[in-house]
Amino acid sequence: MTDLQASNSTQYRRLRVALLGAGAVGSQVADLLLRHGDELADRAGASLELAGIAVRDVNAKRDVELPAELFTTDAESLIVGSDIVIELMGGIEPAREQLLLALNSGADVVTANKALLATHGPELFEAADQVGASVYYEAAAAGAIPIIRPLRDSLAGDRVVRIMGIVNGTTNYILDRMDTEGADFAEVLADAQRLGYAESDPTADVEGYDAAQKAAILASLAFHTTVPLDAVYREGITQITPAMIDEARAAGFVIKLLAVCERLTVDGAESISVRVYPALVARTHPLASVHGANNAVFVEAEAAGSLMFYGAGAGGVQTASAVLGDVVSAARRHIAGGVGVGESTRANLPTVPIGHVITRYQVTLEVADQPGVLASIAGILSDGGVSVATVVQTVEGPSAGSETDGSATARLIIGTHRAPEQALSDTVERLASSAVVDRVVSVLRVEGE
Amino acid sequence: MTDLQASNSTQYRRLRVALLGAGAVGSQVADLLLRHGDELADRAGASLELAGIAVRDVNAKRDVELPAELFTTDAESLIVGSDIVIELMGGIEPAREQLLLALNSGADVVTANKALLATHGPELFEAADQVGASVYYEAAAAGAIPIIRPLRDSLAGDRVVRIMGIVNGTTNYILDRMDTEGADFAEVLADAQRLGYAESDPTADVEGYDAAQKAAILASLAFHTTVPLDAVYREGITQITPAMIDEARAAGFVIKLLAVCERLTVDGAESISVRVYPALVARTHPLASVHGANNAVFVEAEAAGSLMFYGAGAGGVQTASAVLGDVVSAARRHIAGGVGVGESTRANLPTVPIGHVITRYQVTLEVADQPGVLASIAGILSDGGVSVATVVQTVEGPSAGSETDGSATARLIIGTHRAPEQALSDTVERLASSAVVDRVVSVLRVEGE
Repeated sequence: MTDLQASNSTQYRRLRVALLGAGAVGSQVADLLLRHGDELADRAGASLELAGIAVRDVNAKRDVELPAELFTTDAESLIVGSDIVIELMGGIEPAREQLLLALNSGADVVTANKALLATHGPELFEAADQVGASVYYEAAAAGAIPIIRPLRDSLAGDRVVRIMGIVNGTTNYILDRMDTEGADFAEVLADAQRLGYAESDPTADVEGYDAAQKAAILASLAFHTTVPLDAVYREGITQITPAMIDEARAAGFVIKLLAVCERLTVDGAESISVRVYPALVARTHPLASVHGANNAVFVEAEAAGSLMFYGAGAGGVQTASAVLGDVVSAARRHIAGGVGVGESTRANLPTVPIGHVITRYQVTLEVADQPGVLASIAGILSDGGVSVATVVQTVEGPSAGSETDGSATARLIIGTHRAPEQALSDTVERLASSAVVDRVVSVLRVEGE
Repeated sequence: MTDLQASNSTQYRRLRVALLGAGAVGSQVADLLLRHGDELADRAGASLELAGIAVRDVNAKRDVELPAELFTTDAESLIVGSDIVIELMGGIEPAREQLLLALNSGADVVTANKALLATHGPELFEAADQVGASVYYEAAAAGAIPIIRPLRDSLAGDRVVRIMGIVNGTTNYILDRMDTEGADFAEVLADAQRLGYAESDPTADVEGYDAAQKAAILASLAFHTTVPLDAVYREGITQITPAMIDEARAAGFVIKLLAVCERLTVDGAESISVRVYPALVARTHPLASVHGANNAVFVEAEAAGSLMFYGAGAGGVQTASAVLGDVVSAARRHIAGGVGVGESTRANLPTVPIGHVITRYQVTLEVADQPGVLASIAGILSDGGVSVATVVQTVEGPSAGSETDGSATARLIIGTHRAPEQALSDTVERLASSAVVDRVVSVLRVEGE
């Protein structure tokens, strides 16, 4: 350390920083805090003193070597008296109670815990309001991609119309490899697990639970409304087959797991829809070129038009960048004085069920290859209020798993015009029970048009 | 207005907002403030009362119809007593003195004035610091794209390594059309002027002055350093020909006017380079797919990795979105109390001249088509310390404008390895005066590798 650096860091007010958790992200945050302390002090206008790291097992192996004397199992003692508490443990408890303790002790709080925010966000925000503190969570929605501040601040004077986010790196990695290699889901998942892109229990990622938590957070911010997690409609990607990806490609689409947050009018009332599912995205859409484990959030606003934010959605050191940005913000607020700016949730818009969503669909059917079939299917669709835009018929044989009675079958890929989800799903049910339809192979929604 | 809305807006503290200028952006800002007042109040936690609009001519025609009683020519009286002053006049004076008056009167200031910030930013920031106010300028660097908060706050805990920005919509529109249509510069410029994408005097755009101002602002934020405008190296796009674009395409590149802000080490000292020029960008790079008048800022940071921010770079209503986001932030700060957070410029890194930049180049030469020419050119490059990566020779005749003595000439397209700009430019000078070189057709830098 040079004299200049020493004098820089000593002239600042010292802020006591407590770190809860030392996993992939936590150990990187501690390392960067220690290595870049002087630089961070210059930017924050305060010296950020890492007071300790609370962990369950002080002897556990870490991704980064850190001074042993920083570790403690006594989180409560560490929290009380701290100015900034960083929570990177994950899970609901004890994260929730420790963050409430931190806020009630007057600390600002930084967290990357999307599960906690999506389920207990309002409780934390209210506790922060009570004491004039702030909750920072830039790392909770899209890893290293700055999306919270743009939504919360930069677009605060605009009206967000729609967000479409690729917010889960694991599923994007899997779908991208299925798309480029023609591999099937199970095969790529196993590979992703070997490479560390997917966890040994991949449910949270592949079933869309992780994306749903992030969707709730993004929608709450974008629409100034508290969106409870159970209002988010959710489907995962486990049913996506190479055949579906091929059919998508033939029609000019790629399949992406999207978190969609949308403003819509239902029965004359301004409402929102928040949903996560694999969707068809035109190959010319900017989201189509998000490859590998990357994330991107595409935002449409009334005045700003279309914006896109792109980057690494996960990774220890990448997420640590977002966490440290929040730490600097919290420090600046401490120095500047004043109370924390609370969440803006006064719009209080209702979240409508999936049945109200209006979009285009691509429905793939296996049907008997005989005269009159198309007419009778078109009739069912028309009766259901679903208008057909395109029909592609292929007769290259039914898939191996379908039940056949020896007669020829054909595959029909029907692209619909925009229709309400309820009308579509009722119609698909009628198609499924129709005599001329052997099997409903897939129903996919089209987004981004 | 419903009773609920009325009660919402009246329960808030009133903040007096003054608007200076009612051009394309200003009139949209006024319109949105008036139309979305209640919604903005809910988000800001304060009622934003548009106290007046200062203009030169109260009778001038506006893009949007606004109440006549708001207009005044007396900016000073409007400013004094206001809580937030929005400056959208452009130009240096009287914008500078009116913003200083606003800050000294205790108002927070919102501006989209890149010319003013790039030349007098430090003076404004210091005035703000003196009174504990803030200067907001999200709209000054990339129009509607939120880039200021990501750099200032989200990445405050990281180290930005490089920024590459397409920050001028006019030049991107021109280059994109030249690329897709094979048209030449003058032709597309004339068309862009007809369509309103380029001004009647296009100098600020096509010569890179606008991009250089934005580069100075972005570099100052990213590197926590005051970067004076005259430290920004600048070249425009007027010399770009269809042939250069074709050659770029053949080599897998597209030509984009880039603002590059880069951290580099010169003589052992940490330094930065800030430069604007047309550069070769690989067609696989995310910046290559930024079409039309859109903007994008690609940021590489040590921890966060690669991020990209994409959207509309200009336009009245788009820029108004960014301005209003700043107004809401300023209002929130007023309500929260505390002093404004000043600019972080303590890193104070030197900006080095262009000669220190190290990158790859593509040099196109017209040479005599005779034995030994390539060897002698290779010798000159090697003597200059410039190592050759690729050579493509075409003999399809010299261009119409070149001087020929009747003997055959060939075109050599030389791709170099990374070399310092000084070595390259010295070498190009020696090539130009060499007997075997008829003409140096073009020298382009490669960025984003």
